[in-house]
Amino acid sequence: MNDRTATDSKPEHRQPDNNFGHPLNLPLEDLQVAREPHRHERWLVAKLLRMSGSPPIRFRLWNGEIIELQEGQADFTLYLTDPKALLTLVSNPNLAFGDLYSAGRLQLLDGELPDLAETLYRHVHRAMQNWPRWLETLWKNHAPRSTDIDDAKENIHHHYDLGNEFYKLWLDQAEMQYTCAYYETADATLEQAQLAKLEHVCRKLRLKPGMTVVEAGSGWGGLARYMARNYGVKVHAYNISREQISHAREEARRQQLDHLITYVEDDYRNISGEYDAFVSVGMLEHVGKENYQTLSDLIKRCLKPEGLALLHSIGRNRPMLMNAWIEKRIFPGAYPPSIGEFMSLCEANDFSVMDVENLRLHYAQTLIHWKERFDQNEDRVTEMYGEHFTRAWRMYLSGSIGAFRAGSLQLFQVVFSHGDNNNIPRSRRDLYTSHATPEEV
Amino acid sequence: MNDRTATDSKPEHRQPDNNFGHPLNLPLEDLQVAREPHRHERWLVAKLLRMSGSPPIRFRLWNGEIIELQEGQADFTLYLTDPKALLTLVSNPNLAFGDLYSAGRLQLLDGELPDLAETLYRHVHRAMQNWPRWLETLWKNHAPRSTDIDDAKENIHHHYDLGNEFYKLWLDQAEMQYTCAYYETADATLEQAQLAKLEHVCRKLRLKPGMTVVEAGSGWGGLARYMARNYGVKVHAYNISREQISHAREEARRQQLDHLITYVEDDYRNISGEYDAFVSVGMLEHVGKENYQTLSDLIKRCLKPEGLALLHSIGRNRPMLMNAWIEKRIFPGAYPPSIGEFMSLCEANDFSVMDVENLRLHYAQTLIHWKERFDQNEDRVTEMYGEHFTRAWRMYLSGSIGAFRAGSLQLFQVVFSHGDNNNIPRSRRDLYTSHATPEEV
Repeated sequence: MNDRTATDSKPEHRQPDNNFGHPLNLPLEDLQVAREPHRHERWLVAKLLRMSGSPPIRFRLWNGEIIELQEGQADFTLYLTDPKALLTLVSNPNLAFGDLYSAGRLQLLDGELPDLAETLYRHVHRAMQNWPRWLETLWKNHAPRSTDIDDAKENIHHHYDLGNEFYKLWLDQAEMQYTCAYYETADATLEQAQLAKLEHVCRKLRLKPGMTVVEAGSGWGGLARYMARNYGVKVHAYNISREQISHAREEARRQQLDHLITYVEDDYRNISGEYDAFVSVGMLEHVGKENYQTLSDLIKRCLKPEGLALLHSIGRNRPMLMNAWIEKRIFPGAYPPSIGEFMSLCEANDFSVMDVENLRLHYAQTLIHWKERFDQNEDRVTEMYGEHFTRAWRMYLSGSIGAFRAGSLQLFQVVFSHGDNNNIPRSRRDLYTSHATPEEV
Repeated sequence: MNDRTATDSKPEHRQPDNNFGHPLNLPLEDLQVAREPHRHERWLVAKLLRMSGSPPIRFRLWNGEIIELQEGQADFTLYLTDPKALLTLVSNPNLAFGDLYSAGRLQLLDGELPDLAETLYRHVHRAMQNWPRWLETLWKNHAPRSTDIDDAKENIHHHYDLGNEFYKLWLDQAEMQYTCAYYETADATLEQAQLAKLEHVCRKLRLKPGMTVVEAGSGWGGLARYMARNYGVKVHAYNISREQISHAREEARRQQLDHLITYVEDDYRNISGEYDAFVSVGMLEHVGKENYQTLSDLIKRCLKPEGLALLHSIGRNRPMLMNAWIEKRIFPGAYPPSIGEFMSLCEANDFSVMDVENLRLHYAQTLIHWKERFDQNEDRVTEMYGEHFTRAWRMYLSGSIGAFRAGSLQLFQVVFSHGDNNNIPRSRRDLYTSHATPEEV
């Protein structure tokens, strides 16, 4: 019985899937690191920079040679360790940037990774308006993996079942929230901001004691416990991540909330019953556009006539595929909807959209807090999963900071009700009568 | 020189356009009011009721005969004065209901008109899911009239140039706001709620002294004056209604605000310059879907990099044509966008939607207040424009109350910014730190 099998049967900190050990981790002798760059290779680097909108980046090639568009204008230095890395990068930068960075074959020598990511998002976003068709085709992100009921399990397992121990290293200590926090003040701690997020969501749902709530995609169960503990509501919380459900149940028992909460290990598509509120924080990104009608129908069915629904999800300003590397290596099946696609889910059943709030910069701040803790625990992460994994996650967290800062990603909280429900909040003043942030955590 | 020409050159209370004197105002001898109903006519009434979802309505026919689906279950009695009225109603109820009511050939004997409208909207909305295709085709609303730059002038003239005297009879005395007010408390007066709306809009735009604002569709200029007076901003306000502009300029001079405000009598499509804020309250309904790209491009062009834009418009939960009668008789060219279509305007230029608020029930309350004043001034309105007009407007105001109450219409306030702007509000708490409603008006 090898390590891998043992891990599979009782996943404590499960080894990440094979695609982290992908073919870019080549033996050193294959890399031709000693030779001079060819002329066409220098040309390719310059071309890559120009096609990316001429960001303030210079490349250092494997032989030490520097290539930059304007001398002395660069804020960042990227080091390519070998000729093959260059070819891989140029042929599909969306995917290869993360892969090469994870493999250690693309290194950042000057500058901070989140800043580099933000710069790249901003420059590429502008530049791509002028890309020739062939380049668009070459560099395009592919459609996300299937999110069918069976594949969804795989997708979620890939990411969320990496092991609770791993997530405990860098998520908040209050409720292990792996979604955007809500920073009422700039100096709030991660714990404060995550609890404020939970409070903000509860207020938006206008929860009252005795109400019933169904939650789709409940993570480690923190929102369900917060609602039960602070609002005296009964919660049915659905999740297909076994690791998360197991933690959630244990915590509910420990906090003596298990009489109010039922954690159901099942797909959101199997939700049954009728509830006063429907809530889903951070699941829609994994649902896939092709399932919006199903999700909409489900909410139609299970939301009582006067109930409120809240969906909290990463989104976009316009339809756009997920970055190839994130979708392939980090979040299989992920697709953040554009605000219009998000609304199509509401339109599908004549729901009345009451409130949309965009918390984009709150997610950037959340990620900064996560990354600080991740950085502090890098040695432990490497011990658990190896160097490649650590670099991949550093890239993922940094890239996400950049994406939210550059406006490439948004965070939408949407509140809606049945179209014919008149028992709706008249104003949002009640959300702000007191601070959502707890003073001490 | 006849009256009409005189009115055209100096429109004080201009006679409404010809289609208010449409062919339904027949001489009495053509109406066959004396004869017994035919069997097929009784059948048609019952069919009409069933196809409308069996609302609690009974019909009284021209000969006094009552037709109802379930005896004693009706809350409303509708009186059809003649056989032709019945045929007209059945063949196209969306258009004919308002026309016949205006002509006095469909009368409400029991019940209140706004309640009837709400009941009809709710019942028909449910019933139409099951309509056979032929009925859907027969009863469908038609596409709105053109909103090309020339036609837009006609459309706006039709409604907004009826004469400032007319609107003064029933709009608020504070700022003549002909858009949804904001009722922070249920007992606010119309004046308080309209000023609160202006304040709410200004807060959402985070106006500061010295900023520049461009307003598209400025009505009688109240928002522009409010912004200049209370926030010390410079406003360029565009409007194509001559009557409104003339009132707006006069008021600005009277209030000594003309150094801060330029009222421009021109189409929004001709807006030039760059501004810290873009605002449009109650114009988008008249813009027409086919011009959303143009409007979006315009905002892209004239909003400074760190500016905020606010669009306030009647909308829908899903795409749907305007009620035929409203579009034909009241608001030519009107099309309230669905929330998804609204968002398409934002997506078209990669805008970042920051905040959506739905004030649907506030519009119902606004209309109730307008109708109270309108009712009090009916004699004066009839004196000005005749019975037909008075009944048409009573129907329009009542029908709108019903539509907003039934959830057939929504009122969206949408705040957005350029997609790459990070100088965005982090929270909406600042909108609620003090009351938007003035204590005394």
